Amino acid sequence: MQIIRNPLEWQQQTSTHRQAGRSIGFVPTMGALHEGHLSLIHQSKQENDITCTSIFVNPAQFDNPEDLENYPVTWDDDIVALEAAGLDMLLYPAQGSMYPDNYTYKVVEQELSREFCGEFRSGHFDGVLTVVTKLLNLTHADRAYFGEKDWQQLVLLRRMAEAFFMETDIVPCPTVRADSGLALSSRNENLTPDERRIAPWLYKIISSEMTVAEMRETLEGKGFRVEYLKEFEDRESKKRLLAAVYLGNVRLIDNVER
Amino acid sequence: MQIIRNPLEWQQQTSTHRQAGRSIGFVPTMGALHEGHLSLIHQSKQENDITCTSIFVNPAQFDNPEDLENYPVTWDDDIVALEAAGLDMLLYPAQGSMYPDNYTYKVVEQELSREFCGEFRSGHFDGVLTVVTKLLNLTHADRAYFGEKDWQQLVLLRRMAEAFFMETDIVPCPTVRADSGLALSSRNENLTPDERRIAPWLYKIISSEMTVAEMRETLEGKGFRVEYLKEFEDRESKKRLLAAVYLGNVRLIDNVER
Repeated sequence: MQIIRNPLEWQQQTSTHRQAGRSIGFVPTMGALHEGHLSLIHQSKQENDITCTSIFVNPAQFDNPEDLENYPVTWDDDIVALEAAGLDMLLYPAQGSMYPDNYTYKVVEQELSREFCGEFRSGHFDGVLTVVTKLLNLTHADRAYFGEKDWQQLVLLRRMAEAFFMETDIVPCPTVRADSGLALSSRNENLTPDERRIAPWLYKIISSEMTVAEMRETLEGKGFRVEYLKEFEDRESKKRLLAAVYLGNVRLIDNVER
Repeated sequence: MQIIRNPLEWQQQTSTHRQAGRSIGFVPTMGALHEGHLSLIHQSKQENDITCTSIFVNPAQFDNPEDLENYPVTWDDDIVALEAAGLDMLLYPAQGSMYPDNYTYKVVEQELSREFCGEFRSGHFDGVLTVVTKLLNLTHADRAYFGEKDWQQLVLLRRMAEAFFMETDIVPCPTVRADSGLALSSRNENLTPDERRIAPWLYKIISSEMTVAEMRETLEGKGFRVEYLKEFEDRESKKRLLAAVYLGNVRLIDNVER
């Protein structure tokens, strides 16, 4: 497994693969890898000649400095997992190298990105769209893989690729869950043992037959603070119910078909 | 000369050239072509195997609906000129095809784009950066050519390409002037005969030895309304003096080394 720190060197290497006619699959991550990430890598390996991952905790997408500071870092474990998964290339950008412009240039979306998570995390999706644009420009990927857990992100990225005529397919992958039903997330690392026992109720409740009002009440009864619980409908897919909740200081999101 | 109206078909054709190892030069325009545009095409032809142009009057970059409405259209002459220049491919996007997203997605810059022309033309550079991003993603160009007349645009585009790791070189080309010194511009078409006699004073005055205050006074004495007249210094080039003025309803810009 090749580890590259210089984005321009990465760009040159992926370009060489592309020119040689090898298809490239790309799985961008912020590290703290779990089975959800690894499922994306497995899928990419099945569909492409070369599979690439990036580990970059993107400061631009954190609306809350504390959240950025507490974001889990598990570098040694990540490397072991990526090697075991048979990853070909890892981009681990040197400090500052992704924002030579100090983030004066942004990609923004003005409708959906302001709703749901965007209503509560100002600027979050600007940061996501901007960094993914950079990473896609660097990677020459045929396909980029994203988990359905971040449903809103997935829709925004798919539409962005279409709006800007990007040549990478945005491939949605099913949410990976623990046996308890809890959607895997790097942020689960920050749950206390007590919170971890409560967390699986999120999925149980939102995938139940209750009304949205009943769900909200039930979640609050279990100790969740509900940020939003709202249906989402777009032209491309069936209706979803999207949820964001807090358990203590930890923010959890999930979604289900509705 | 191939004329293509469907952006996705254009993308496929340029991709085929690229895969065949042919270098591509690209000259984006809004039509109403003059010798300035043709000089970009000539330079592109010297430096690339294939030269592409687009004619697209980009609504997103017009802050003023009247300006958009009055923007000169000289389609028949443009085609004759492009054929004579030996252009290979022309993209003339079908209505609506460049903004499948209805312009909900934008590329923005938050510092320089708000100064100089940006101070007076709100949203103008958002529209320029957004459309050029789309056109570059569609064209697979090795080099894209822009006139130095639009100095601020050139700097913003060069920095954008760097910020987003775009693989197209942004190539600056010297301003082409009439014998009188007047910088060629599609908007010159809209000058009355009287205004046309006055217009060349803009360049004469800003390239003189006067102070900026004296220049402003002299311009106003000649009948110009000065929008701004201001020095610009960046890390990449020498100091420039940038000017935007009105003659009647026609807005003219120009710049000189300082």
